[in-house]
Amino acid sequence: MTSLELETLLDSVRAGTVDPAAAGARIAAALRAAPFEDLGFARVDTHREIRQGFPEVILGLGKTPAQIAAIARSIVSRGRPLLVTRAQPAAFDAVREVAPGACYHSDARAITLANGEVPPGRGTIVIACAGTSDLQVAEEAAVTAEIMGNAIDRLYDVGVAGLHRILSEHHRIQNARVIIVVAGMEGALPSVVAGLVSVPVIAVPTSVGYGASFGGIAALLGMLNSCANGVAVVNIDNGFGAAAMASLINHL
Amino acid sequence: MTSLELETLLDSVRAGTVDPAAAGARIAAALRAAPFEDLGFARVDTHREIRQGFPEVILGLGKTPAQIAAIARSIVSRGRPLLVTRAQPAAFDAVREVAPGACYHSDARAITLANGEVPPGRGTIVIACAGTSDLQVAEEAAVTAEIMGNAIDRLYDVGVAGLHRILSEHHRIQNARVIIVVAGMEGALPSVVAGLVSVPVIAVPTSVGYGASFGGIAALLGMLNSCANGVAVVNIDNGFGAAAMASLINHL
Amino acid sequence: MTSLELETLLDSVRAGTVDPAAAGARIAAALRAAPFEDLGFARVDTHREIRQGFPEVILGLGKTPAQIAAIARSIVSRGRPLLVTRAQPAAFDAVREVAPGACYHSDARAITLANGEVPPGRGTIVIACAGTSDLQVAEEAAVTAEIMGNAIDRLYDVGVAGLHRILSEHHRIQNARVIIVVAGMEGALPSVVAGLVSVPVIAVPTSVGYGASFGGIAALLGMLNSCANGVAVVNIDNGFGAAAMASLINHL
Amino acid sequence: MTSLELETLLDSVRAGTVDPAAAGARIAAALRAAPFEDLGFARVDTHREIRQGFPEVILGLGKTPAQIAAIARSIVSRGRPLLVTRAQPAAFDAVREVAPGACYHSDARAITLANGEVPPGRGTIVIACAGTSDLQVAEEAAVTAEIMGNAIDRLYDVGVAGLHRILSEHHRIQNARVIIVVAGMEGALPSVVAGLVSVPVIAVPTSVGYGASFGGIAALLGMLNSCANGVAVVNIDNGFGAAAMASLINHL
Amino acid sequence: MTSLELETLLDSVRAGTVDPAAAGARIAAALRAAPFEDLGFARVDTHREIRQGFPEVILGLGKTPAQIAAIARSIVSRGRPLLVTRAQPAAFDAVREVAPGACYHSDARAITLANGEVPPGRGTIVIACAGTSDLQVAEEAAVTAEIMGNAIDRLYDVGVAGLHRILSEHHRIQNARVIIVVAGMEGALPSVVAGLVSVPVIAVPTSVGYGASFGGIAALLGMLNSCANGVAVVNIDNGFGAAAMASLINHL
Amino acid sequence: MTSLELETLLDSVRAGTVDPAAAGARIAAALRAAPFEDLGFARVDTHREIRQGFPEVILGLGKTPAQIAAIARSIVSRGRPLLVTRAQPAAFDAVREVAPGACYHSDARAITLANGEVPPGRGTIVIACAGTSDLQVAEEAAVTAEIMGNAIDRLYDVGVAGLHRILSEHHRIQNARVIIVVAGMEGALPSVVAGLVSVPVIAVPTSVGYGASFGGIAALLGMLNSCANGVAVVNIDNGFGAAAMASLINHL
Amino acid sequence: MTSLELETLLDSVRAGTVDPAAAGARIAAALRAAPFEDLGFARVDTHREIRQGFPEVILGLGKTPAQIAAIARSIVSRGRPLLVTRAQPAAFDAVREVAPGACYHSDARAITLANGEVPPGRGTIVIACAGTSDLQVAEEAAVTAEIMGNAIDRLYDVGVAGLHRILSEHHRIQNARVIIVVAGMEGALPSVVAGLVSVPVIAVPTSVGYGASFGGIAALLGMLNSCANGVAVVNIDNGFGAAAMASLINHL
Amino acid sequence: MTSLELETLLDSVRAGTVDPAAAGARIAAALRAAPFEDLGFARVDTHREIRQGFPEVILGLGKTPAQIAAIARSIVSRGRPLLVTRAQPAAFDAVREVAPGACYHSDARAITLANGEVPPGRGTIVIACAGTSDLQVAEEAAVTAEIMGNAIDRLYDVGVAGLHRILSEHHRIQNARVIIVVAGMEGALPSVVAGLVSVPVIAVPTSVGYGASFGGIAALLGMLNSCANGVAVVNIDNGFGAAAMASLINHL
Repeated sequence: MTSLELETLLDSVRAGTVDPAAAGARIAAALRAAPFEDLGFARVDTHREIRQGFPEVILGLGKTPAQIAAIARSIVSRGRPLLVTRAQPAAFDAVREVAPGACYHSDARAITLANGEVPPGRGTIVIACAGTSDLQVAEEAAVTAEIMGNAIDRLYDVGVAGLHRILSEHHRIQNARVIIVVAGMEGALPSVVAGLVSVPVIAVPTSVGYGASFGGIAALLGMLNSCANGVAVVNIDNGFGAAAMASLINHL
Repeated sequence: MTSLELETLLDSVRAGTVDPAAAGARIAAALRAAPFEDLGFARVDTHREIRQGFPEVILGLGKTPAQIAAIARSIVSRGRPLLVTRAQPAAFDAVREVAPGACYHSDARAITLANGEVPPGRGTIVIACAGTSDLQVAEEAAVTAEIMGNAIDRLYDVGVAGLHRILSEHHRIQNARVIIVVAGMEGALPSVVAGLVSVPVIAVPTSVGYGASFGGIAALLGMLNSCANGVAVVNIDNGFGAAAMASLINHL
Repeated sequence: MTSLELETLLDSVRAGTVDPAAAGARIAAALRAAPFEDLGFARVDTHREIRQGFPEVILGLGKTPAQIAAIARSIVSRGRPLLVTRAQPAAFDAVREVAPGACYHSDARAITLANGEVPPGRGTIVIACAGTSDLQVAEEAAVTAEIMGNAIDRLYDVGVAGLHRILSEHHRIQNARVIIVVAGMEGALPSVVAGLVSVPVIAVPTSVGYGASFGGIAALLGMLNSCANGVAVVNIDNGFGAAAMASLINHL
Repeated sequence: MTSLELETLLDSVRAGTVDPAAAGARIAAALRAAPFEDLGFARVDTHREIRQGFPEVILGLGKTPAQIAAIARSIVSRGRPLLVTRAQPAAFDAVREVAPGACYHSDARAITLANGEVPPGRGTIVIACAGTSDLQVAEEAAVTAEIMGNAIDRLYDVGVAGLHRILSEHHRIQNARVIIVVAGMEGALPSVVAGLVSVPVIAVPTSVGYGASFGGIAALLGMLNSCANGVAVVNIDNGFGAAAMASLINHL
Repeated sequence: MTSLELETLLDSVRAGTVDPAAAGARIAAALRAAPFEDLGFARVDTHREIRQGFPEVILGLGKTPAQIAAIARSIVSRGRPLLVTRAQPAAFDAVREVAPGACYHSDARAITLANGEVPPGRGTIVIACAGTSDLQVAEEAAVTAEIMGNAIDRLYDVGVAGLHRILSEHHRIQNARVIIVVAGMEGALPSVVAGLVSVPVIAVPTSVGYGASFGGIAALLGMLNSCANGVAVVNIDNGFGAAAMASLINHL
Repeated sequence: MTSLELETLLDSVRAGTVDPAAAGARIAAALRAAPFEDLGFARVDTHREIRQGFPEVILGLGKTPAQIAAIARSIVSRGRPLLVTRAQPAAFDAVREVAPGACYHSDARAITLANGEVPPGRGTIVIACAGTSDLQVAEEAAVTAEIMGNAIDRLYDVGVAGLHRILSEHHRIQNARVIIVVAGMEGALPSVVAGLVSVPVIAVPTSVGYGASFGGIAALLGMLNSCANGVAVVNIDNGFGAAAMASLINHL
Repeated sequence: MTSLELETLLDSVRAGTVDPAAAGARIAAALRAAPFEDLGFARVDTHREIRQGFPEVILGLGKTPAQIAAIARSIVSRGRPLLVTRAQPAAFDAVREVAPGACYHSDARAITLANGEVPPGRGTIVIACAGTSDLQVAEEAAVTAEIMGNAIDRLYDVGVAGLHRILSEHHRIQNARVIIVVAGMEGALPSVVAGLVSVPVIAVPTSVGYGASFGGIAALLGMLNSCANGVAVVNIDNGFGAAAMASLINHL
Repeated sequence: MTSLELETLLDSVRAGTVDPAAAGARIAAALRAAPFEDLGFARVDTHREIRQGFPEVILGLGKTPAQIAAIARSIVSRGRPLLVTRAQPAAFDAVREVAPGACYHSDARAITLANGEVPPGRGTIVIACAGTSDLQVAEEAAVTAEIMGNAIDRLYDVGVAGLHRILSEHHRIQNARVIIVVAGMEGALPSVVAGLVSVPVIAVPTSVGYGASFGGIAALLGMLNSCANGVAVVNIDNGFGAAAMASLINHL
C-alpha cells in the first residue's frame, strides 16, 4: 500500500464511498505484510515508499546481475516503479527477463520501468552540467528525477570559462523550483548559479578531470566551500542522490 | 526594494490602487540604484535580496570588528535584517554602535538584528543534533533559520548510540518540512533520520571529536556516503549554510 | 604438538595413564622440532598454534599459486586445518593438488580444509552486514570463524537506512557472544548495533561505495569515531581479521 | 535498575524469597521510568546500563564544566558510578560540588566516583605502553578499566626498539585475559605482543610523535595493518574506548 | 652592478662616451665581487639581481628579527631596494635600525624600502580578490608588485556569488597586462576572470575559510583544475610569489 | 571574426580602403552570430577567440569519438585551427573524417590541424623536461605551443641528478622569453631553472614516478613550494595548460 | 674513464711505470669526452660513474623498449655494467639485441649485464624481508647490490608476528655491515632489527597489503617514525634505491 | 660495560695483562646487571650501548622535566654521555640539578653532557641546510653528531635557488664521508648534492614553509622521490635521527 493509495482510501472514507470498517481491514492487512522481503542476500525494504515516498532503488554497483534481477522482481511484482543505477548491460539482460518492459539508458547507466502511479512534482527541476564529460552523471540525475515524477529541463555544457553560455539561459534557470548542478574539475558552476537564483541548488561533483582533480575531490571541496548561499552537496558522481533530494523538495 | 515590496507594488497595480506609470518609475529608480555599495575593502551586494530572498549575511571570520561594523551599517541603514556569523564579542561591541538594537547569541557566536519584514517559511524546520558538543553549530543554524523567518524545533543530544532517544521523538521529526541534522564523530545520525522521513535532510558535519575524526572529516565523509536517500551535505561546522538552504526550501 | 594435544597429554599424566618421563620426552621432542619450516621464500611458523591457538593462515594476496600450494602442503602435512584467504581460482587449482579435500568458497574468495581437531568456541558469533555488496567480506569472516571452531549466525542487508530491518532481528543480536559488523559507505551500522548490546562488536569497514567513500576510508573513519562503546575496528575489507579476533574472544 | 539488580531479583524469585507479583511490579516500575532524562542540552541515557552493562560515561571534551556537572549529578543521583574522561581541572571543581567524593586522576585527565556495585571482570587486563610519552592515554585506559570492575596490570615503556623489555615481562603478558597496547610513533608494539599470545589485543594509537606521525595517523595505520592476528583498533588516543571494549570482553 | 647599470654602461660604450677598456675593467671588478655574502647563518645572494632582475627578498617566516636585520643591512648597504615579507612588528623594529627609511605595511605584513633605481613594468597589474578576508594576501601582492616597479590596480571583494560585482569592472580587467586573482574558499574567481580576458592570470589560493577548506587546499585544487586557459597557480597565501611572477611577465 | 580580422578591418578603415559603413555592417553581423553553437551535448564557444586569442580547444578525455568529431567539425568549418588533447587513436579516426588534413601526434596524444592565420608569438618558448619518462607531457606542451603560433626549443632529460646536463645548455635557457619545465618525481627542476633566469617559468608536474610520488603529488607540492621566484604551476600532466599560459605571455 | 681506472693510472704514475705526460694526455682526453651522450629523448650521463661510483642505471618505468635499448647500448658500448630496473619482458627482448649477454631476473623485474670491473664492497649486506609477498622488492635490492659489487645475505619471511623467526637468525644479522629491511603492511620490522644491531638499516616500505595500507603509505609512515636509531627510509617499493644507498655505505 | 671497555678488556687479555679468569668474571658481572632500569614510568635501556654503540638518548617531547631529569640521572650515574633532544628550558633546569655540567644548546633545543669515552668517527660529516629557517634542525643534527664522536662541517643557506652557493663549496662536500642535507619547502637540495658525490646522503625534510608545504610533507615527498642515487630519508625535523644514522655510518 503506497502513501498515495492510503490517502485515496482515507479520502474515500471521508467521502463516504468506502466503509470505515472495510478501510480499517485493508490498512491492517497492509501493516501485517512484512516490512521487508528477505531474499537471503538482501532484504527488500517494502515499506520504504510509505516512509520515504518512493520504493527502494537498486544500486547496481557490487551486485551480480542475478542479485539485481531478484530484487527487481520483488519490486516489480508489487506493482511499483523500478530504478537500477550503475547498471551494466549484463544486469539489464538479467532484469529484462523478470521485467520485460524495462529500458536501459546507456548514457545514464540506468534501468527503469515505469510501473504504477507516482505523485507528480510541483515544479521543474533544472539539471545543468559544466561540460560534455559530465553528461553521464547529469543523465543519471535526469532519469532518476523523471521516474520519480518530476518535469526536468536539461542545460548542458554551460561551464564558467564561457560565462555567456549560462547567462544566456538565465530565464530557464529562473524558471526552476530546484536546480541540480553537475560539475567536475574545479566545480565552480554551483556557486555561480546559486548566486543568480533564490531556489535550492543541489551540487554534484563529478570525477571528471585528471591530476589534481583527484577523482572529484577538487570539485567536491569547491562545492562544500561555496561562497554562495543555498548550496548543498552530494557524493561524487551521485547523480541519483541529487535527483532523489531534488524530487523530495519538488514534492513538498 | 525587496522582492516583497516589489510584489506588493505589482499587486497594487493589478488592484488599480497604484498607477502603472508611477510604479514603473519606482522600479526604474530601484534598478538605477547601484547593485552594490563599494566600501573599498568590501562591496556590499545590495541586490542580493532581490536575487536570493535575503540580504547579504556577514561571515565574521577573518574580518576586523571595524570592517564588520561598516558592512553592518550599510545593511541596517537600508532597513534590512542583520546577521553576522562567527562573530567574536569584540565584533559585537563594534556592531552595537552602528546597530543599537542588535543582540549577541553566545552559543551560536552570532549577532542578529530583526529589521524590516521577512516573508515567513511555510512549515517547521527541525534541528537535531547528535551530542551536547554539537550545540554551537546547531545554535548557529537555529539563529539563522529564525531570522530568515522560519519556525524551528530543537531536538538535541539524540545520537545513534541510544536509538530510543531519537525514536521517542518520532512525531516531532514527522512534523518537519525540512530537517537539519548536526553531528560530529562518525556522523551517522543523518542516515538514520533520513531513513524515517520523506522530507529533505540537510546534514551538517561538525569538527567535534578527536584523533581520527580529523576535524570533522570523518563525519563529512560519513554524510556524503549516506546510504539513505534525501540527504545533502554542507561544509563542516556550517550551521549557517544548512539553515540558509533549509530556509530556501521552506519558502518554496 | 598443538595446545590441545599438550593439554590432553598433561591431563593423562595427572590421571596416571601416561608416565611423566614419557610425557617429558614427547614435549622435549616437540620443542626440539624447528619452530618454523624454511621454504626459502617463506618460513612457515609451525609454533603459531602453540602461541596463538590456530595454525598459520595463508594470505593469498601477492603470492603465486605455487608458493601458496607449497605453504599449504607444509601445514596440511602436519595434520592441521588449512585456510587460504584472498585466493584466486588458480591458487585453488594448485592447492587441490597438495590437499585433495580442500574446498573453494567463491563468495569468500577462500580455500579451506578441515583437518585435525579445533577447540569449539563457547557462544555464537553473529555476522551482520549493511548491504548486499558487503557480502564478500562478510563471507570471508563467516568461513574463517567456522573453520576456527565457532558457531555463526548470518544477518545480511540490515543497513541503517531501514532501521526496522535490524530492529526486527533484535533477539538474534542479543543471542550473540561476539558480533562482527561489516559495512561500507558511511559505516554507521556498528554504532547502532553496539548501542543495543553488551557484547563486543568487531567492526569491518568495506571498500564498497564510490566517490567520497575513498575505497573504504569513509567507513573506516566512521567506525573509529563510533559514539557507541564496545566497538573496535580492523582493516578495510579484513573479514578474516575480524573473525580471528572474534574467535579468540569466543574461545576465552 | 541495573542488570545486576535484575538478576538478583530474579534469583530471589526462583529462591522463593520474593513474590513473583512483587517482582513483576518492581520490574514494571523500572520499565516505566523514562529511558533518558532530558536536561535540555543533553539526554542522559538512563537505560544504557541495562543495554550495555555500565552507565553512560561523560566525554568531557567540548562540554562546559556546568554541563558536565549537570549530567554527573543525574548519574550519581541514581546511585551509579561516575566516569568523566578528557576532564579539565575546572570540570572537576564543578563536579565535586555535585559529587563530593569524586577524585581527579591528573595523569589520566579523568574524574571518577565509585558508586553502587559493579560486576567484577573475570581475569586481568594488561595495559602495555610503548613509551613514557604514551602514559596519559594508558592511564585513561587504566582508570576506565578499574571503575568498570577489572583487575589491571600496568606494563609501561616496553617499546620494540629494546625488545628485551617486553620479552622479560613475558609471564605477565601470558597471564592476561585481554591486553590493551598503547603506542605512538610507528605503532609496532601490538603486532609484537599479539604474536606472543592467544588472547585478544586492543590496540590504541596515540598522537605521540612529530613530523610524519601526523598526530597519530602513522600509528593508527600501522595497527590497522598488523600482520599478527587478534588485533583490533580504536581511535587515536582513545584509552577509554579500549578499556570499555576490554571490559566487555573480560565480563563475558 | 645591476643589469640596468650594465646596460647603461654598454650603451655608453656604443655611444663612444665610455672607453671599452674602462668598461671592461668595471665589469671585471663586478664579476670578481663575491656572488654571495656569507653571514654565517645566511648567504646573501648578491648576484640574484643580475640573474633574476630584482635583489634577494627576505622571507621573514622562521627568521629572528636580528637575522632579518642583518640580511637587510647587507642588501641596503649595496644600494638596492628592500622587501621583507611575513614580517612581524618586532622584525620591523630591528630593520628600522639598519634601514631608517623603511616602512611597515601592516595589512600586507611587509617591510619595504625603495632604494636605487628599478626598471618600470610595461603595463598595469590588476590585483583582484574574492572577499574582504583575502585582503592580507592581496596586499602582500600589491606591495611586492609596486616595489618591483609595476603600476597596479586593486579590485577587491568581487567574488562569484555576486557576478555583477566583477562584470561591472570589466573595463578595468580588460586594461590589465597581467592579472593576479586572490581567492579562498572554493577559489572559483580565477576561472571566471580568465574566461573573460586574453592576458595571463596568476591565481593565489588563500587559507581563508573553515572546515573543508582545509587551510586553502580546496581553493588550491580548484585553481589547479581551472577549466579556463591561461591560469597558473602559486602556493597558498603566496601573494609575494604571484607578484614576483607577474612582475617578470610585466617586464618582458 | 577573429581579433586579427577585426584589427585588419579597422586598419583598413583608418587607411581609407574600407568604408566605415561597410565595416560597421560586417562587425554587426559578427556580433549577431550566436556566441556559441549548441550541439545538444556541447556548446561550442565561438567567441572564445575574441575573448582569449585562440579558439576553443577540445579536451578529449571523457568524450566519445563522435562527440569530439562533431565539435571539431564546428571549429574547422569556421576556418579556425584545431587542437584536440588527450586524444585516443579512435578519436583521430573520427576527426579525420570531418577534418581530412588533421594529423595525430602520438607522443603528445594530440590531434592538430593548422587552419587560418594565427598571430606569431614574440620570442622563443623553451620546453625543458627532467627525464625521458616526462616526454609525453612535454610533447603535449610543444604541440600546443606550436599551433598557437610560438617558436619552441626542446631541452629533454636534463634532471637535477646530473646538473651539468642543464648547466651546459645555459645559453639556450637564457635565450627563452618563457620557459616551461616539465618534471615528475621530486619536481626540483623548475626551482633550479628559475634560479638561473629572469623570465617566467611555468612548472608542470607529471605523474611519472611510483610509490610516494602519489601520481604526481610529490612533484606538484615541490613546485608549489619552490624557493625560487618566478615559478607558477599548472595541473599534474597538464602540458596543454602550460603551453596555453606560455603562449599568452609570449604574445604580450 | 672510471674512478678505478683513474686511480690505477695515478698509481702507475707514482710507481713510475707511466709517464706523467702520457697520463696527463689520457686524463685530458677523458675530460674532453662529452659528459653526456645526447640521444634526443635522453642524455646518458657518462660522467656519473666518476661522480657517484657506478654508471647510470636505467629506470624502465615509463620508457619504451626501444628507448631502454638505446640507452643500454650507450652504456654497454662504453664497457660498463648494465642495470635496468622495472623492466618488462618486452624491454628485455629489445635489450638482448644490443647487449647479447644480458640476463633477466623475473622476480626482481631487472635486467643486468656484468661488464668491466666494479670495486668490491667491504662487508656483507643483509637483505631481510617481512613476508613472502615482499619478495619482488627484496630481489630488486639483491640484484642491484650484487651488480654493484657487494656480497649479500638473504633473510626472507621474518616478520614480527613470529619474532622467533628473526631472533633465530641473530648471528646473520650481527654479521652485516649494512642491513636492508623490506616490509609492507605495518612496516614494523626495521624498528625491531635496528634495535638489535649497531650498523645502519635502510628501510624499504612495500605496497604489499590492502585497505588501509594505502599502497604502502602505512609502512612508509611506520618506518619514518621508527623509535629505533639508525634507520633511514627510501621510497615505497624502491629496492633499487635501498641497494644503491647500502652499496655506497659498504664501499666507504 | 661499553663495547669500548669490552674491547679494551679483551685486548688486555690477549696482551696478557689481564687474566682470562678475571676478565670472565667482569664480563659475567656486566651481563648479570639488569638490561634496563625500571623507573616506573620508564625503563632505561642500559644495554643499548652494547647493542647500538651509544647509550639511550632522551626524546624530551611529551615528557615532564621531572621525568627527563630522572632518566638523565640514571644515564649519567652510569658514567655515560647524555643527550636530550626537543628539550625546553624548564627541562634543562631540572637536568642541571642531576647533571651539573650539562649545557643547553638553544638553537638545537638540546641538552648535552660529555661523559666517559666515545669512539671517534672515521671521517667528517657535512651538514648542509637550504635556508636560514632550517637552522634549528641542522643544529640538532650537529649537536647530536658531535656528542656521538664525529667531526662535522656546517654548510648553511645553500638552497638551489642560487646554485652557485652550493657549487662554490664543492671541495667541502667532496671532503665528507657522509652528508646530512636539511631542507624545507620543496626539499630539492638532497637530489642536487647527491648528484655531485659518491658518499651516502641522509636527507632531513623540515616543516619550514607555509601553505602547500603542509608542515614538511612537500619536502618529505620530494626527498623520497629523489632522482639521485644514494639518498635515504628520515622523519620531518628529525635532525637527531639523521645524525644518529650518519654517525653509525661514520663509525663503520
